[in-house]
Amino acid sequence: MSNTAPGRHFLQIPGPTNVPDRVLRAIDMPTIDHRGPTFKALGERVLSGIRAIFQTEQPVVIYPASGTGAWEAALVNTLSPGDLVLMYESGHFASLWKKLAEKLGLKTEFIAGDWRRAADPDAIAERLQADGEKRIKAVCVVHNETSTGCVAPIGAVRAAIDRVGHPALLMVDTISSLGSIDYRHDEWGVDVTVGGSQKGLMLPPGLSFNAISQKALAASEGATLPRSYWDWQEMLGPNAKGFFPYTPSTNLLYGLDVAIEMLLGQGLDRVFARHARHGEATRRAVGAWGLEVLCLDPGQYSGSLTAVVMPEGHDADRFRQVVLDHYDMSLGAGLGRLSGTVFRIGHLGDFNDLMLMGTLAGVEMGLARAGVPHRPEGVRAAMDFLSER
Amino acid sequence: MSNTAPGRHFLQIPGPTNVPDRVLRAIDMPTIDHRGPTFKALGERVLSGIRAIFQTEQPVVIYPASGTGAWEAALVNTLSPGDLVLMYESGHFASLWKKLAEKLGLKTEFIAGDWRRAADPDAIAERLQADGEKRIKAVCVVHNETSTGCVAPIGAVRAAIDRVGHPALLMVDTISSLGSIDYRHDEWGVDVTVGGSQKGLMLPPGLSFNAISQKALAASEGATLPRSYWDWQEMLGPNAKGFFPYTPSTNLLYGLDVAIEMLLGQGLDRVFARHARHGEATRRAVGAWGLEVLCLDPGQYSGSLTAVVMPEGHDADRFRQVVLDHYDMSLGAGLGRLSGTVFRIGHLGDFNDLMLMGTLAGVEMGLARAGVPHRPEGVRAAMDFLSER
Amino acid sequence: MSNTAPGRHFLQIPGPTNVPDRVLRAIDMPTIDHRGPTFKALGERVLSGIRAIFQTEQPVVIYPASGTGAWEAALVNTLSPGDLVLMYESGHFASLWKKLAEKLGLKTEFIAGDWRRAADPDAIAERLQADGEKRIKAVCVVHNETSTGCVAPIGAVRAAIDRVGHPALLMVDTISSLGSIDYRHDEWGVDVTVGGSQKGLMLPPGLSFNAISQKALAASEGATLPRSYWDWQEMLGPNAKGFFPYTPSTNLLYGLDVAIEMLLGQGLDRVFARHARHGEATRRAVGAWGLEVLCLDPGQYSGSLTAVVMPEGHDADRFRQVVLDHYDMSLGAGLGRLSGTVFRIGHLGDFNDLMLMGTLAGVEMGLARAGVPHRPEGVRAAMDFLSER
Amino acid sequence: MSNTAPGRHFLQIPGPTNVPDRVLRAIDMPTIDHRGPTFKALGERVLSGIRAIFQTEQPVVIYPASGTGAWEAALVNTLSPGDLVLMYESGHFASLWKKLAEKLGLKTEFIAGDWRRAADPDAIAERLQADGEKRIKAVCVVHNETSTGCVAPIGAVRAAIDRVGHPALLMVDTISSLGSIDYRHDEWGVDVTVGGSQKGLMLPPGLSFNAISQKALAASEGATLPRSYWDWQEMLGPNAKGFFPYTPSTNLLYGLDVAIEMLLGQGLDRVFARHARHGEATRRAVGAWGLEVLCLDPGQYSGSLTAVVMPEGHDADRFRQVVLDHYDMSLGAGLGRLSGTVFRIGHLGDFNDLMLMGTLAGVEMGLARAGVPHRPEGVRAAMDFLSER
Repeated sequence: MSNTAPGRHFLQIPGPTNVPDRVLRAIDMPTIDHRGPTFKALGERVLSGIRAIFQTEQPVVIYPASGTGAWEAALVNTLSPGDLVLMYESGHFASLWKKLAEKLGLKTEFIAGDWRRAADPDAIAERLQADGEKRIKAVCVVHNETSTGCVAPIGAVRAAIDRVGHPALLMVDTISSLGSIDYRHDEWGVDVTVGGSQKGLMLPPGLSFNAISQKALAASEGATLPRSYWDWQEMLGPNAKGFFPYTPSTNLLYGLDVAIEMLLGQGLDRVFARHARHGEATRRAVGAWGLEVLCLDPGQYSGSLTAVVMPEGHDADRFRQVVLDHYDMSLGAGLGRLSGTVFRIGHLGDFNDLMLMGTLAGVEMGLARAGVPHRPEGVRAAMDFLSER
Repeated sequence: MSNTAPGRHFLQIPGPTNVPDRVLRAIDMPTIDHRGPTFKALGERVLSGIRAIFQTEQPVVIYPASGTGAWEAALVNTLSPGDLVLMYESGHFASLWKKLAEKLGLKTEFIAGDWRRAADPDAIAERLQADGEKRIKAVCVVHNETSTGCVAPIGAVRAAIDRVGHPALLMVDTISSLGSIDYRHDEWGVDVTVGGSQKGLMLPPGLSFNAISQKALAASEGATLPRSYWDWQEMLGPNAKGFFPYTPSTNLLYGLDVAIEMLLGQGLDRVFARHARHGEATRRAVGAWGLEVLCLDPGQYSGSLTAVVMPEGHDADRFRQVVLDHYDMSLGAGLGRLSGTVFRIGHLGDFNDLMLMGTLAGVEMGLARAGVPHRPEGVRAAMDFLSER
Repeated sequence: MSNTAPGRHFLQIPGPTNVPDRVLRAIDMPTIDHRGPTFKALGERVLSGIRAIFQTEQPVVIYPASGTGAWEAALVNTLSPGDLVLMYESGHFASLWKKLAEKLGLKTEFIAGDWRRAADPDAIAERLQADGEKRIKAVCVVHNETSTGCVAPIGAVRAAIDRVGHPALLMVDTISSLGSIDYRHDEWGVDVTVGGSQKGLMLPPGLSFNAISQKALAASEGATLPRSYWDWQEMLGPNAKGFFPYTPSTNLLYGLDVAIEMLLGQGLDRVFARHARHGEATRRAVGAWGLEVLCLDPGQYSGSLTAVVMPEGHDADRFRQVVLDHYDMSLGAGLGRLSGTVFRIGHLGDFNDLMLMGTLAGVEMGLARAGVPHRPEGVRAAMDFLSER
Repeated sequence: MSNTAPGRHFLQIPGPTNVPDRVLRAIDMPTIDHRGPTFKALGERVLSGIRAIFQTEQPVVIYPASGTGAWEAALVNTLSPGDLVLMYESGHFASLWKKLAEKLGLKTEFIAGDWRRAADPDAIAERLQADGEKRIKAVCVVHNETSTGCVAPIGAVRAAIDRVGHPALLMVDTISSLGSIDYRHDEWGVDVTVGGSQKGLMLPPGLSFNAISQKALAASEGATLPRSYWDWQEMLGPNAKGFFPYTPSTNLLYGLDVAIEMLLGQGLDRVFARHARHGEATRRAVGAWGLEVLCLDPGQYSGSLTAVVMPEGHDADRFRQVVLDHYDMSLGAGLGRLSGTVFRIGHLGDFNDLMLMGTLAGVEMGLARAGVPHRPEGVRAAMDFLSER
């Protein structure tokens, strides 16, 4: 892991993101007794603080696990074998979540999407409307599709479900939006929100989250999918006193403590505005290069990442390799059906204007080196934007 | 987590253990792209090195999860709903694993134990002998019972199973023995070995392991318990190239890389001998204090920890609090039915003679302060032993 | 520097001392612009905070240099070539300071001492009394002689000087007492106090200090020893705004900032009491071993370190080597004329009861291994003391 | 020191430079006994390795001090009060060194310069030629003038001195060139080379160096300026065994060990080429902005930094403040007579193409925000260069 190249690596995949020095130093402190009073204070602090990040006053459980585990947790706590789940095909991660649900013994139904738009509330409402028998037990939506850079209007999804009076639970994946794009678990009436540590939260990977509504909690009582590690009930008891039912990832919790302090210290509004600003600067660069942003709906543009369509006949992965070899920057690959045709620029987490400019310069120089047709005006366009706002 | 007390806290619970400075500094390095070439080299190194720790040439999967997750993984990968599992009641952790199996929909049967001895191969053989219909699909044994400090003779358990010709899988929990007490996955014919990062491996909590025999792998093909996060098959494909199916706990893997290098650099034999030596020194102290070691069979004494029985009428938790308040040392509590009557001294991980002497002095001074009857000769006895060997 | 031995090295020389994890993590933060606003705030904080440690309201300058440099600074700022300095032969460091003064072109006079007692105020008074022509320009005394573990009564030295009405400056070396043993620059009327970072201040070596009285400052105006790097006047101007005349040791200043916060947070009185307690425990151990403490005057016993006289016919350095090889502990050597006949136990800095007990156990076991005659009762005696107070 | 702004601060002053994570983690390791065997190995390694950086086989002494201390050391070890030193007015640091020499009691003579060119060998030869009585004892030249970004031809200075057959010592300041710009202590026949840790060596400030020729060593025997802390003779004895005469800056030496390994691992030639490349890219940006590089002689352009002349009527410090406030980047101020009229871009140390592009984008956006007339084509010009080479 010790890159021998000079200078800092530019980690511009859409997560894991660049971890702040303060967070790294925090996770570097000696491990403590997870049953002792010092831990209790830490536990209470992070369990409380993380709620502010989800904009909720309801419980948030913290798993020593990747985000994938929190996907699984959301489902096994609330559903029973054979339950039908309505999902929306917003992109690769929606597809993975669907696949995971099926492996767990759930039935799934996909509202087809083109991977260039986020989940559509009207389509969801229409499908629920048709579900006279209320066979659909949950609606699963990805807030910010990490594979496409499209952001779903979660409040509108909630309103759509309510409009048709359907009792399904609403579950939302915020892995790449939490701490980067405005997200309101309570106000938007989400039942289970899934989050992870390694994106907007600015931590290394290894922690993930479920924010849980009262309705979801009630559903968990009758849900019969087998569960133990992920079981909310096991968590909530000890959590009330700052503890965990099994050994937590102590050192990552140190980091979470600092990351929460940093995010709330900056102010979530300012954090969201910064991400939006960097998203806009990036899109101006993409446009000036003459390239196409994957996301087709400007109302759905992401502040976390921008997926860029490669010109016909040019392989995105080869381009990414050129950038890595020559400019020591990691860009995100096109995933699933987008493999080779799209690359992704992560601009989330602990990030600022000059890091973004280094990033965009790396893309622009990489396009030149890789012989990808483009106008060399993207960096200029981004600077014009950033020096005015 | 920043203790304001002067000097180093003595973390003498039986795990998490004291993390070496080199490991802490490793996990403090910037997170890298888990899909890139630098990660690939890391992944290949740790996936190979961890096998040497388990003394196996078969695959070991690494989960971004606590040890509890690896317990669950062992079961869901190999068993189907309603399968019968034979477990041995060696102590609190055996009981927890049993409870977990039941939550997953398995049937369990416990061979009763007194929590002062490890699993008994003969009792296991006897029970398997009686299982004419081969209803028992797995035998689950804890190698080093962290709640009692008794070590089970795993090789003898294997021999016992073979003797009666029973096809059940053998699953072993080595969470508090791995990297501390000799353990041989291959030689002992274990099918699934469960391990964790935060004990003998000298890491913070957050990683756990399954070492997997060919027989276990074959069993996983027909096993129908739902699984996704824990699914071996999903892991083994990407692992072959140094990668993981979902975002791994990158920074803990940095630490694992260093910890493996340290353990193999010292030599596993020397590591085991050091732990055995510290166990013996501790037991000499306990005997000299006039107190009783919980483990009744000298052949089962643990090199990882020593559980000590409190004299009648004295509460172990009050004693531990005195030690914490006056000497800034965390000792392990009695767990489950041992609560209040036993305390545990962890002497595993990154540890040496003088740390042990500080530990034992803290216990001895704590006994005096707490008014627990004892002879003040334990530290002396331990020093006599340590200054001769 | 990466010790391959398991566990923590016991660094029980009388400095450098064990650096707290929080301080190490602080010096590990990225270097910043030493001319910018973030630095200014840091500079102001440490320049103010360090005064509290010296118990002074007068200026303290901070050098990017070892303590030896601060010795030099005290002399070159206040004296002129050929000036006579009265020094007291309390031990090795007093002798080194004298040698340094001579190399700088000063005349020195030594009041002979036996290296088993600190500076004697009466002897100083007597010599000053005899100095009718006031040729003596400065009196230099070591507060805590790191080579012997004897503490000089600085208030009494001040009183002695005043009693005879001599105008000489009083300069005091507190390198191994600052932050460990009560020291009052203002109340005791010291003109220049010399300090270093790597002892009671709990930092790595690399910073040193001069606390400066108004009288010393006035003297500096006429002093003609050449100076530039050490020149107070160059320092005091920029210091007033939180800055330094040349590049300061930025990262060590981060550590100083944290160390000051820790010391003042614990309270200096409690810090001093802890050191005194550990000194007493150590001396009880020495007595119980049947060995002799070097310092002959109980009123001068040091809370920072204890020098122990080896029994006749046993080499202290061979003993220290045995302790290092077998118990991974560094003890202090006998210095100068005490070489081979004395070893020193450092018990200062970031230290606590159990670290002390590990230390004393290491000494006791080392005595046994090295075949040094002793009663194996020292650890017991120290525990008796520590479990009562 | 904990910047609350998001992302990494851009520290683009010409030193201290961005410290690599590996170096920071190294200085974060526990302090060890500076008299023990582990230190001895470290000491031998760094004292040997640092010679390779100076391209010398002669001794290099390492001071726990800033570079200013190493200036002083060079003079006090070789000269006597009243000796005449010939210096060349290349800029602010040459002037400071001259002032320091005078404070030490030396006579100095300045060959006037315009602060836009480096030292001129012919002018030096001419002055030495005129010194029939050989009153000039040393010639002091700054290799890379940190205030101007002009590099002196040291080999040509040596040749000039030899041509006129003058016996003066040649002393060279390489504080901002060492490890960045090719420098050959032995091949160029330099008598004392002065270096510091916080620039091309990629360390925090706090260490400085004297590389010493045999001729300088011989001169030190007769030199009568008072010295103790800086005394080479005191250093060289213990250095031969890996030790130091007084407590060294142990933790910075850990960092030096890693930094040397990194520089030699990359290869000095590649390190120098990288700096030259970044210098050229920066100058192309400056030219494209329509601004002027301070250094007038293209043969003297620096790979470490570029000083840029502000357009008439615009204050450089106000501009720097705009850049700091809006883009979280520290640029170097104009120093001495250049104050307010020049700003400096540091591009040395642990640095790469994308960090440079972030830097140049910050300057270009800052020029726009500050209303400084320029053509917004500098970043473009730099990218054109960097994407072709």
